Amino acid sequence: MSNGAVPEPDPTKFTGADAAFLQDFATLCTFGATSGGGVDRQAGSPADGEQRAWLTGLLEAKGFSVSFDQVGNQFGLLELQPGAPYVLVGSHLDSQPTAGRYDGAYGVLAAAHAAFRLAEEWRADGRSPRYNLAVVNWFNEEGARFKPSMMGSSVYTGKMTAETVLATEDPAGITVREALEATSALGEGEGPKAAYAAEIHIEQGRSMERNGVTIGLVDSNWAANKYQFEVHGEQAHTGSTVIADRRDALLGASMLVVTAREIADSFPDGAVHTSVGQLDVYPNSPVVVPSLVTLLLDLRSPDEELLAQADRMLHDRIGEIEQSARVDIRKTGSHCWPVTPYQPEGVALAEKIAANRGLTHARVKTLAGHDSTNLKDIVPTVMLFVPSVEGISHNEHEYTTDQDIIDGLHTLTDVVRSLCLGELDQR
Amino acid sequence: MSNGAVPEPDPTKFTGADAAFLQDFATLCTFGATSGGGVDRQAGSPADGEQRAWLTGLLEAKGFSVSFDQVGNQFGLLELQPGAPYVLVGSHLDSQPTAGRYDGAYGVLAAAHAAFRLAEEWRADGRSPRYNLAVVNWFNEEGARFKPSMMGSSVYTGKMTAETVLATEDPAGITVREALEATSALGEGEGPKAAYAAEIHIEQGRSMERNGVTIGLVDSNWAANKYQFEVHGEQAHTGSTVIADRRDALLGASMLVVTAREIADSFPDGAVHTSVGQLDVYPNSPVVVPSLVTLLLDLRSPDEELLAQADRMLHDRIGEIEQSARVDIRKTGSHCWPVTPYQPEGVALAEKIAANRGLTHARVKTLAGHDSTNLKDIVPTVMLFVPSVEGISHNEHEYTTDQDIIDGLHTLTDVVRSLCLGELDQR
Repeated sequence: MSNGAVPEPDPTKFTGADAAFLQDFATLCTFGATSGGGVDRQAGSPADGEQRAWLTGLLEAKGFSVSFDQVGNQFGLLELQPGAPYVLVGSHLDSQPTAGRYDGAYGVLAAAHAAFRLAEEWRADGRSPRYNLAVVNWFNEEGARFKPSMMGSSVYTGKMTAETVLATEDPAGITVREALEATSALGEGEGPKAAYAAEIHIEQGRSMERNGVTIGLVDSNWAANKYQFEVHGEQAHTGSTVIADRRDALLGASMLVVTAREIADSFPDGAVHTSVGQLDVYPNSPVVVPSLVTLLLDLRSPDEELLAQADRMLHDRIGEIEQSARVDIRKTGSHCWPVTPYQPEGVALAEKIAANRGLTHARVKTLAGHDSTNLKDIVPTVMLFVPSVEGISHNEHEYTTDQDIIDGLHTLTDVVRSLCLGELDQR
Repeated sequence: MSNGAVPEPDPTKFTGADAAFLQDFATLCTFGATSGGGVDRQAGSPADGEQRAWLTGLLEAKGFSVSFDQVGNQFGLLELQPGAPYVLVGSHLDSQPTAGRYDGAYGVLAAAHAAFRLAEEWRADGRSPRYNLAVVNWFNEEGARFKPSMMGSSVYTGKMTAETVLATEDPAGITVREALEATSALGEGEGPKAAYAAEIHIEQGRSMERNGVTIGLVDSNWAANKYQFEVHGEQAHTGSTVIADRRDALLGASMLVVTAREIADSFPDGAVHTSVGQLDVYPNSPVVVPSLVTLLLDLRSPDEELLAQADRMLHDRIGEIEQSARVDIRKTGSHCWPVTPYQPEGVALAEKIAANRGLTHARVKTLAGHDSTNLKDIVPTVMLFVPSVEGISHNEHEYTTDQDIIDGLHTLTDVVRSLCLGELDQR
């Protein structure tokens, strides 16, 4: 146990390659380790640089060729069919501040160990699969330090330009380019060409744990409307300015935060999720009525019609808040996506594999965005989940049992083998 | 006009010492000038250092001896009666971020020019008053960069220790000691001994403007309860965590902000003022439910019984918010003061002087804290106000007319003369 928080990975309960995986996972947990048993390794930070260097060593020791693309995506390439495209399997090593150990990191290390097993298999039996294999550590999935999230996979899939990403600044004014250079993670080019993609991740919710499911077969993502709002008021003295004269941006912003929750509460459980995770106040002085608050507000739902209803409620309410708090609320950014499916043939493949392994499994939706959410828009992509204990995530107490991460690794290995062998190719 | 915002001081409409005062005020407005026509010269900043050096030059040119005490209070001393205590007249040059030009700065410059006139008078007629005279620029009245506010005058009046103040850090970890050293404003000792004090300041409200009053005679301050709260929740994923599982610190904090306004609105106009000027979110990432919000909440009233009522409403409501948002709200600091009077003999003196000058005048209360609020607790203190156009303050559009600041300067000069001559001494 670390600080009585989350159990440490215990390789002694497993053997061979499974024990080696847990041993490597225990090592990975030490990069950017926090006193509360979690990790803090935001994209492009020194801790991120250290874990990337460690991953390079791990991959090279197994004969993989490591390179970085133009926005710091890290690839470990195993070329088995010269000139053929690659099956990309991976996730992200970057984390939120005071985050858990599993989010992203499990997926990258499981990808590496799945690839190691397959490389060994093919070396032993002398056969070559139809596609090449790449382990991927996508840059900045979390979007904590540099916005937006899923940056590396967005460039890879053509949704953002490398120029935009490299010029993006963190709150201290450091650009992505500078952070990548400082961590020796800035490469060239666009990375290997993909044929298929696969990712495994913790669920970050509690539905699988509740239903006793070990392997989640992700068939679609929730729809989401993400907005950036600026609430404009006017600076005034907090003591002497009469209440009726105030145009308090923080009051307006607070009413928006409360409204977002009220909207979620007006729907049945689990139908609509809303949140405000980031909020900044200016000038943020004890005796000054705030003149500007910037905040990020999300609405998410598995049902696009419900999301549209929630969105209308929000926009109706904004006008009322503007009047009652005497503020102007401006939408300065939005990023919206519908419910989109993962390719059904990939879901069916993963379902067959989990059944063959004798593992409990179920189709699930992902509420969070993942790098695979981007990848599935350009190639057939398989996304697997393993359960999160108590649904805890983005928290130092995030935990998935050793047995579940091993079962996930086995399933992922089988999925990647099938993809490399061309089992999903059009026949 | 600067950017169409606030009219510039216009010395051409006045003559002699009054024109010289406006000329100096125009110069003072250039230190830390913002593009919006205001100033940004937070305590211990380079702009604060520059204006202090300029003030030193201004005072020394008129024969005043300038020194800094152990916490950076700046004194311009005119010793007329060797060994006698001093009449301290001044205010503060530091400002909020994107502040107006008048708050504090007017009071320091008016103090200097009142002292120049009196020094000249006494030099001309060869007489010496009973007390010595000191122009004061108190360190860090605003408390924007270093908390709390009224720091310099709190040490001078024995309410805080110099050690505590010097070790206080700004958000970047720079201490007051370091900031004072960097701006050549760290001196020694406790400053001159006071017999009386006087300060002139803008009202920062709109009561005097509305009632056509030029000179406000401050007879007491509002009572205030200032609290620091920490709202504790738990980090979680904003997308995947079901609403019922969330313990959202920002939701709880937002409910507190809204509650504070509801409390003010439940009293008659002007009876209770409430505000939250500062609020910080952790980890403040778009996809993480916040685990900690720190905020400063103030309640103020001219009536202690109403303040107590408002305070009970707040504390009752905190328990409800803890339950409905599933957060813990902890009070981590408080600073409360009652309605306290300025010495009535000082108010009467100022009233007589304003009447002699033929200026409209009225007794008023100060809602904001001032350095004189501290000074009055150790020596008889006279506090004067001049009107604020539209009551605007802590805002780049803060404005008081040239005629009003000149009338205020004349009244302050007469008050300081009387104090130096010992007119308020016990007979």
